[in-house]
Amino acid sequence: MSILIKNVFFKEEPVDIYIEGNIIKQMGQGLSAQIRADKVIDGTNKAVIAGLVNCHTHSAMTLFRGWGDDMELEAWLSEKIWPYEARLTDEMVYWGARLACLEMIKTGTTCFNDMYWKMDAISTAVEESGLRAVLSSVTLDSSNTQTVSDIVAPIKESHKKAGKFSDRITFALGPHAIYTVSKDIFKWIDSYSKDNNLLIHTHLSETPTEYDNCVKAHGLSPVRYLNSIGLLSPRLIVAHCLWLDSEEIQMLADNDVKVVHNPNSNLKLASGYKFKYHEMKDKGITVGIGTDGCSSSNNLDMIEATKVASLIGKAWRDDPTATPAKEMFKCATVNGGIILRQNVGKVKEGYLADLALVDLNSTAFTPNFNFISNLIYAAHGDNVDTVICNGKILMENRHVEGEEEIMRMATLSARKLFFNK
Amino acid sequence: MSILIKNVFFKEEPVDIYIEGNIIKQMGQGLSAQIRADKVIDGTNKAVIAGLVNCHTHSAMTLFRGWGDDMELEAWLSEKIWPYEARLTDEMVYWGARLACLEMIKTGTTCFNDMYWKMDAISTAVEESGLRAVLSSVTLDSSNTQTVSDIVAPIKESHKKAGKFSDRITFALGPHAIYTVSKDIFKWIDSYSKDNNLLIHTHLSETPTEYDNCVKAHGLSPVRYLNSIGLLSPRLIVAHCLWLDSEEIQMLADNDVKVVHNPNSNLKLASGYKFKYHEMKDKGITVGIGTDGCSSSNNLDMIEATKVASLIGKAWRDDPTATPAKEMFKCATVNGGIILRQNVGKVKEGYLADLALVDLNSTAFTPNFNFISNLIYAAHGDNVDTVICNGKILMENRHVEGEEEIMRMATLSARKLFFNK
Repeated sequence: MSILIKNVFFKEEPVDIYIEGNIIKQMGQGLSAQIRADKVIDGTNKAVIAGLVNCHTHSAMTLFRGWGDDMELEAWLSEKIWPYEARLTDEMVYWGARLACLEMIKTGTTCFNDMYWKMDAISTAVEESGLRAVLSSVTLDSSNTQTVSDIVAPIKESHKKAGKFSDRITFALGPHAIYTVSKDIFKWIDSYSKDNNLLIHTHLSETPTEYDNCVKAHGLSPVRYLNSIGLLSPRLIVAHCLWLDSEEIQMLADNDVKVVHNPNSNLKLASGYKFKYHEMKDKGITVGIGTDGCSSSNNLDMIEATKVASLIGKAWRDDPTATPAKEMFKCATVNGGIILRQNVGKVKEGYLADLALVDLNSTAFTPNFNFISNLIYAAHGDNVDTVICNGKILMENRHVEGEEEIMRMATLSARKLFFNK
Repeated sequence: MSILIKNVFFKEEPVDIYIEGNIIKQMGQGLSAQIRADKVIDGTNKAVIAGLVNCHTHSAMTLFRGWGDDMELEAWLSEKIWPYEARLTDEMVYWGARLACLEMIKTGTTCFNDMYWKMDAISTAVEESGLRAVLSSVTLDSSNTQTVSDIVAPIKESHKKAGKFSDRITFALGPHAIYTVSKDIFKWIDSYSKDNNLLIHTHLSETPTEYDNCVKAHGLSPVRYLNSIGLLSPRLIVAHCLWLDSEEIQMLADNDVKVVHNPNSNLKLASGYKFKYHEMKDKGITVGIGTDGCSSSNNLDMIEATKVASLIGKAWRDDPTATPAKEMFKCATVNGGIILRQNVGKVKEGYLADLALVDLNSTAFTPNFNFISNLIYAAHGDNVDTVICNGKILMENRHVEGEEEIMRMATLSARKLFFNK
């Protein structure tokens, strides 16, 4: 299968893009005169961007959208989240993840980093959606009744099962957080990750409560604690990281730990808002952007998340030049590819053909003196018109195959989950 | 002309809405069996909301979208805004305002509060667009060469000219700010406003620089200064109000001054982010929401502005229950109607027929347990499908008459403005 995208704007110039299999094979002007492709897409009045990379989400939590908002964190978790997560079936998780994939396709995201329950159902949903993902199953060991082998058995099982899916799906390890996973399990996970070259995806230093409790329990702040048990490594992806000092930033940098900023979720849950992007960047840390799950950020629109990352970065520093659109866009694309170790995030020959075409025929791009500025500050995910992942067209003219059925089944699953009907 | 909207969701129940002329005449279930209308709209799988009210913008600045971002305030104003504002022609302003009206229609806003140059051109644009607006011409008197009568003559002239437009357009007075308008002119404006029962629209206490300079110049903070010269009144609408203490909030409340929160602009320009919504509400101040102009917030999407108002309100207070979606939505609708003294902001019999229908057939509303939460936290303006203003359909199935031409002409106007070609 080959695709030729004709006359599409890239960095303010019209180009043709030739995709062969799942790779961007050639880019340039006038390619269409030389090359014949199975499918031709007219890119006129559209701009091409790398598919966005959502570096932290809990996909199937789309089912929880609007289910508990404007609540205290404790009440929200204990009344609205945990009792229902305990009732989730494979089928519910499958449809929740299908809905998440649909929403990501509709808003230009082609790759995401997930952590949730029932990974097999999620893998099936991602496989069928056509997206690319790094998937981890949540690991917890807060109960006292489980032994290490009780806990590691399902991880190994998930890892084994992940092998049956295509290479769009990458297995990762998902220890939930320092307050829900013991030192021994963290150490086992690190060692398993090293032996199998797997990424580790965890939450870190998200709230002051986590910070204070960690200091109480271990005499160390969250980052220092993870460092003390040898967990900081280039394989580690940490979401949030709102509460840290310059020494901790240096520790993350020294160990090439990857950090994911989730601005919407952090603001909405009032976890904190002083994300130290510039300090991290200055130390060479690769920072990505995530939406977090739909129970805390309510949508999976990476363009909105990137805008809010830029706005809040300027606001808390009292500096309108901070967190500029171009840098935040790089976090949402190039850095995402690096963090998830996928050959994506750039529209460039040799990269995987994970692309989105943005419709310029809208008020957000009128006038269009600065495409990236318009994309981040004026547009939304809905301005994406066409999405290609792994060389396959997943959306064209905003239509995704099966979308009505996915929304219908996700609604039914959510009703079953919350109202048992 | 009469319109019947059949089977549309309102507060979680399906209703029919009958519009006669420009008024919501009747609402209820089963109306369609009794009433014949000139036009029937099928509201199935749609929800009705009051048209959003954008309480502070500079409409024609859509032309400046993406023209200067991520810059220091001084450089931005002196290099990117002022030299080009000086070159604006009536035609440019007309097309900029047409583009703004198009964007507002496309995102569910039916009424707005504007302050800009060349009010006659803007009035024409608004009149033709079908929207409702309170329009003020900017008044400045920072130059030393002008007398009071030099300055008030064009205000009276604008007021007179405004009479030729329909009652969708309301004339207001637009003294720019305390640092650009003298005490004498403010006092003249207040007296003229009282005599003619006109609203006054100004910027107030937007930045620390404004605050400090006001204290230096007058020995008083901005709100105290306006109070000292007798300007605080129920006719006064003040945009921003980020820097004030509880005594100043009490002054605003005592005088029934209306306050407009512009979260996106405040964050992007790093003007401040601790908008004291709850303190103002507790004192009985009517708070509205605005997008500000497209040079500082980049779009006119009131749903996005309302979301960001909610997010930042929770974040800086460290309280996830603060600024809940329902209250912020009320600010963006009901309060907007009160602030602009228009009989709008509610879907209710006897109110003006300024409505938006939201398409529920999208991921943002899947599942749909809490419509307002989904609208504010998950959707964008693009989820609006149909817009009615003053009993006239301005958008149906996301199509607005003449939209291509408006975008084309606005682009040409912007090119002429910035590149002289």
